[in-house]
Amino acid sequence: MEAVKTDLRETEAFFHRVIPITRAMGVRVISYDGATLVLEAPLAPNHNHLGTAFGGSLTAMATLAGYGLLWLELGDPGAHVVIRESSANFRRPVLKSIRAIGHRPAEEEVLRFRQEFARKGKARMEIRVTIEEDEAVAMEFLATFVAVHPPQP
Amino acid sequence: MEAVKTDLRETEAFFHRVIPITRAMGVRVISYDGATLVLEAPLAPNHNHLGTAFGGSLTAMATLAGYGLLWLELGDPGAHVVIRESSANFRRPVLKSIRAIGHRPAEEEVLRFRQEFARKGKARMEIRVTIEEDEAVAMEFLATFVAVHPPQP
Repeated sequence: MEAVKTDLRETEAFFHRVIPITRAMGVRVISYDGATLVLEAPLAPNHNHLGTAFGGSLTAMATLAGYGLLWLELGDPGAHVVIRESSANFRRPVLKSIRAIGHRPAEEEVLRFRQEFARKGKARMEIRVTIEEDEAVAMEFLATFVAVHPPQP
Repeated sequence: MEAVKTDLRETEAFFHRVIPITRAMGVRVISYDGATLVLEAPLAPNHNHLGTAFGGSLTAMATLAGYGLLWLELGDPGAHVVIRESSANFRRPVLKSIRAIGHRPAEEEVLRFRQEFARKGKARMEIRVTIEEDEAVAMEFLATFVAVHPPQP
């Protein structure tokens, strides 16, 4: 357990360092069990004009969850990962904290991604992220990410 | 000119007050001519692991530009405006500052929206926002917003 906790704190510190707005948003890494990555942020710095979570904070959290899943999957935070396209469906307002859950794709899809990344040095994968509150999906997010081997020095 | 400038500063202060993460992002309201609303934010608080703009900051800026256009169009920052769905297409990295341009829909579409809002107290409209740098579109964003008359006290 200690090792896992340390990794979560390291991942959180990595987010805050390389994507500084995540610190202002108060993003925390809650759990990662290989199948889902859970992030949370408090409402206070992320509320909108209606006192609910700002849609921009929701898509930012979802984008971060997608990046995080890929980094943890590749085991290489130095991999160049970029987002290519995304869609978001806002179903209900988020009233308390923002809880983003990144869902690892099916095993065969992850395998294809890994093989392609190893062979071509570039691969894309679609990742689904949900924002959930009180066991209901408040926002659903689908995004395509592209990972590229960084150029050799 | 003075009146317009004052309005821009007021809109900017409104953003910072009701959506506090926009202050941390350093969002500024650059111009509004009735056809386009231009927002900017510096790269420093919004960069990612590659030193380019974080995708989450891009969608947050685009979401804000959409809200802003609707508020300015309705002339009523108290109107309950929510985002229903959005899609983003990331074409190239943003290297300097984030410049989000909200494009007012065609006149007949805005007229339909206004009439429906007046008649039913609720209306939706799709708004297109582009993030542009060096005269090229770095990200294209389409979102559907819903405006609702707030419940009477």
